[in-house]
Amino acid sequence: MPFFDLLVGKPLATSEERAEQIGPIAGIPVFGLDALSSAAYGPEAALTLLIPLGLMGIAHIVPISMAIIGLLAIVYLSYCQTIDAYPHGGGSYTVASENLGANAGLLAAAALMIDYILNAAVGISTGVGTLVSAFPRLQPHTLALCLLILLVLTLINMRGVRDTGSTFLVPTCLFVGTLLAVIVIGTIRTIAAHGHPLPIVAPPRLPVSGAMLSLWVLAKVFASGCTAMTGVEAVSNGIMAFREPKQKNARRTLTIIIFLLMTFLAGIALLCRAYSIGATEPGVAGYQSILSQLTAAVIGRGWFYYLTIASILSVVVLSANTSYADFPRLTRAIALNNYLPHVFLIRGRRLLYSHGIYALVGFTALLLIVFGGVTDRLIPLFAIGAFLAFTLSQAGMVMHWKRLGGGGANWRMAVNGIGAVATGITLVVVLVAKFTTGAWITAILVPALMSVMVAVRHHYDGVAREVAVEGPMRMENLAEPLIIIPVDRWSRISEKALRFAMKLSDQVQAVHVDAEECYEEVSRNWQQNVGGPFAQAGRAVPELVFLESPYRFVLTPLLDYIGKVERECPDRQIAVLVPELVVKHWWQTPLHNQRARLLKVLLTVQRNHRIMVISLPWYL
Amino acid sequence: MPFFDLLVGKPLATSEERAEQIGPIAGIPVFGLDALSSAAYGPEAALTLLIPLGLMGIAHIVPISMAIIGLLAIVYLSYCQTIDAYPHGGGSYTVASENLGANAGLLAAAALMIDYILNAAVGISTGVGTLVSAFPRLQPHTLALCLLILLVLTLINMRGVRDTGSTFLVPTCLFVGTLLAVIVIGTIRTIAAHGHPLPIVAPPRLPVSGAMLSLWVLAKVFASGCTAMTGVEAVSNGIMAFREPKQKNARRTLTIIIFLLMTFLAGIALLCRAYSIGATEPGVAGYQSILSQLTAAVIGRGWFYYLTIASILSVVVLSANTSYADFPRLTRAIALNNYLPHVFLIRGRRLLYSHGIYALVGFTALLLIVFGGVTDRLIPLFAIGAFLAFTLSQAGMVMHWKRLGGGGANWRMAVNGIGAVATGITLVVVLVAKFTTGAWITAILVPALMSVMVAVRHHYDGVAREVAVEGPMRMENLAEPLIIIPVDRWSRISEKALRFAMKLSDQVQAVHVDAEECYEEVSRNWQQNVGGPFAQAGRAVPELVFLESPYRFVLTPLLDYIGKVERECPDRQIAVLVPELVVKHWWQTPLHNQRARLLKVLLTVQRNHRIMVISLPWYL
Repeated sequence: MPFFDLLVGKPLATSEERAEQIGPIAGIPVFGLDALSSAAYGPEAALTLLIPLGLMGIAHIVPISMAIIGLLAIVYLSYCQTIDAYPHGGGSYTVASENLGANAGLLAAAALMIDYILNAAVGISTGVGTLVSAFPRLQPHTLALCLLILLVLTLINMRGVRDTGSTFLVPTCLFVGTLLAVIVIGTIRTIAAHGHPLPIVAPPRLPVSGAMLSLWVLAKVFASGCTAMTGVEAVSNGIMAFREPKQKNARRTLTIIIFLLMTFLAGIALLCRAYSIGATEPGVAGYQSILSQLTAAVIGRGWFYYLTIASILSVVVLSANTSYADFPRLTRAIALNNYLPHVFLIRGRRLLYSHGIYALVGFTALLLIVFGGVTDRLIPLFAIGAFLAFTLSQAGMVMHWKRLGGGGANWRMAVNGIGAVATGITLVVVLVAKFTTGAWITAILVPALMSVMVAVRHHYDGVAREVAVEGPMRMENLAEPLIIIPVDRWSRISEKALRFAMKLSDQVQAVHVDAEECYEEVSRNWQQNVGGPFAQAGRAVPELVFLESPYRFVLTPLLDYIGKVERECPDRQIAVLVPELVVKHWWQTPLHNQRARLLKVLLTVQRNHRIMVISLPWYL
Repeated sequence: MPFFDLLVGKPLATSEERAEQIGPIAGIPVFGLDALSSAAYGPEAALTLLIPLGLMGIAHIVPISMAIIGLLAIVYLSYCQTIDAYPHGGGSYTVASENLGANAGLLAAAALMIDYILNAAVGISTGVGTLVSAFPRLQPHTLALCLLILLVLTLINMRGVRDTGSTFLVPTCLFVGTLLAVIVIGTIRTIAAHGHPLPIVAPPRLPVSGAMLSLWVLAKVFASGCTAMTGVEAVSNGIMAFREPKQKNARRTLTIIIFLLMTFLAGIALLCRAYSIGATEPGVAGYQSILSQLTAAVIGRGWFYYLTIASILSVVVLSANTSYADFPRLTRAIALNNYLPHVFLIRGRRLLYSHGIYALVGFTALLLIVFGGVTDRLIPLFAIGAFLAFTLSQAGMVMHWKRLGGGGANWRMAVNGIGAVATGITLVVVLVAKFTTGAWITAILVPALMSVMVAVRHHYDGVAREVAVEGPMRMENLAEPLIIIPVDRWSRISEKALRFAMKLSDQVQAVHVDAEECYEEVSRNWQQNVGGPFAQAGRAVPELVFLESPYRFVLTPLLDYIGKVERECPDRQIAVLVPELVVKHWWQTPLHNQRARLLKVLLTVQRNHRIMVISLPWYL
């Protein structure tokens, strides 16, 4: 398959694993795009809720952003500790299930799985949505474009993490570079203008409103702003993908990502206040995103403006990639504990957990198709999953340090404890603030997914108990099985079957169902072709059993007979040797009866432990 | 299945066969509806072509009808001889292939098969078409109604021929009775009025036209009128369905059918001239069928008129039934000569050749769906198949008598010879006259179907040669096969497999593909659980083969190894014993890998005669 190889790369040997791992810089596009792209919609979401307050509202964005940045710092410190403690990957699932018990782990797992799928769907559809608003002629093809991008991302990811990192490095650098440039230039201008810089392109004037900021609105603004924190989990989950020293490289990547995200959030908040930039009503003519207004105000609408906007767009789309990197790792971790099908443990030809990718792509495609490629309403669901995972992870880490004890344990417990409390409170705020606008969906999906996982585990436990070895192999009662051969007319096929049966056992019975009333012919042929040679060889002639079939059914009398023999010989196994004609081309199938195949299926359906089926194919 | 039994009847034992056969009267609805219903559209088709001639044209219908009746008489005499000569059923296929060679037989077979399918589709869609023109609100459901009638006919026919006969006897009697009454009353009135009776309801006035009757038009009128002769073949094909004395009963049925058909044709032609009834333009407002005009003219538009029209309609629909009675018999006869799949030989639970019915229903449904339930344009194709079959049958009978010789042979040869020449000429006329309006389709389909049948025969001949017994069974080289067991980790499943293998052979190899690098564990378990017991029992420990799998593929190394072993042991058979986990519920399938199933498929695809597959199911 040279074309397939070209598309997703040649298979990699298990021994090539080392080479497929990434450094701290390559880690940013692989694990950081989700977090970094949050800068594009977190502040926007918060400012949108402040629209009713008009000019007055913008002032509040700075303290709210600072609160979010503070929370981010706590979460960062907590995750640094997690990376230290779990060198093999410490996602919320691992940490919670090891320290808080299986149920807490499943809760985290369900929340994260839903989050990763949402992230992929929303990232792609947001990107396509922006593209479509720029080129309205593409509108009817929204879904097709979404699925196309999903396909391209899948193919890139099927090549493996290192290839993904290098593919996405350029857009990531462009995004970080342009946004940093805007923030740095804006800040210099602000300082130079003593806090009141003149915008190059003035943002829309904000109305002066008399509305007051209630605590409830503040909570909702904070909850919306917290979507800026999704995606922080990714690095600690993917430590194994890094080059040695894994933990150090992972920590470096996490540090860079968090530092950049904090800079973005702080810069955007400060510049919004300085330039008096507020959100515009979404979905209404004249809508313009915060980052677009900001860039235009700082740099003007030159080529740099378009470069910045384009890089933001591409990173939003590529943020879906974080799901590709982490979802398969998560499902593998869950499957390792028997809560998900074991296929998620299999590493594919490029050393990836390919089935995780298939599942992610399947569910994402389903979401996109169900929502027709427009998934904006799913954005609020994000933050819940993320903060549920944060809280469980931090709480788990507290238990971890408590159990471990030793020097510095108290200090570490405190860091994670503060993290747990802070993210826990945030979770409650987000859940309450967003419940009616979609959080209830998550509240249904999470327990549903948890019950599926418990059912899977239950099944695997049952199987494990059933097939568990009870001691050394038993050597008694190794008598040859009784072999039953269904025989139609005598032919080379029946001859081959009988010969093979003779090789396997001395107890062979041929059974003929007389549906077509050809007793005479079959009986004569048997005498002539079997009886003779056996008598000559001095062996007992195998018995030929005739079964009556007044209604011309073939399989029913046969199955009845096999069942009877099985009951009569409780100490022997029964092997049904089924001679089967295998045609050369599929279209020849209707030319031959499919009774052999049907007999095999029917014998399997009976689920009798003592009846075996031996296929004896005759290849035409 | 009590509901199923209620629907299509309880299964019938082979010994009940006699009771399921029919008498001469019940034979009419079973085999005669196609022929009798022809009276409804044969004259109509002829008169339609005479429309341009106006009042002048009607005069010609009497001689043309007489010619057709004469031809019918010849065909009748010929078929009486066929029934005598072929007591087991002498359809054109049998007669032509036995006397004119296989190719002539196939030609007749192809023509007849196409004809029977056309008959079923056209009968149903004509009936529904009339129903729809009476109740225009049903128009959008045309196809659904067609398929519904097809389903009902199928269920009735699945009960068996005798049930079919009694079900259809009432509408048949009604049809014959009312139409005969109309003809007799009309004739009496005509005689009483000295040839110029006064119509009770006057038919539409016919225009006086100056157009002349050319020979070409005459040929086309004759060709169209000949559709009245389709369906005559049916009885001679179905002799075996009659009660003893079969031939006598069959001949009686044929006689009654032909007598009725002749009476209808003659009566309709004479009354049309007497009452000056001509065809009206079909598909145009004011259209009225010949039989409707005739009945109204003779009896008036009272309840009897509606009874007559209703019975004509029902018989047209039920004429599709002739196909059900004869198509399965025809396909069986062809399959007996290995030109069609052998399933057509199997008698189902009600002693019918059920697969023939399935095939008929399938193709009819296909035709109805493709044409959306409107198949009028297929009517001209009919006559070709019928006359092709007539000609071949008569020609075959000539050869039959010639070969047989003896007293009366010459006379009999003459009867069939005249039949062959007459129907042959008619065939040429029909083919030429109808070529551009559809006959070309038959001209393509017939050879296509013939090539399929030749290909089927070729396949069966090849298989028969391949599996033909070459003599008594060979008793040498009955060494036990080498058994290969793919083993994953050691479990009760592998233990069961190994125990079963030990029962079958002394040469057992367990093969482990080391895709997950667990050499140590597997090796230790083997030593402990297998090595020990075997050593104690004083038997050679079965070999455990480790296969490297750098790319983590499991099946490829396994297949390579099996192939290698097969090449190394040219004198022994290889049996691959595949332990397989069989889940209890289908939805548990994704929880277990499907490698066992895939391995079996891949081994089958290799088509290696010396490699057998033994399934060892483990039922959870």
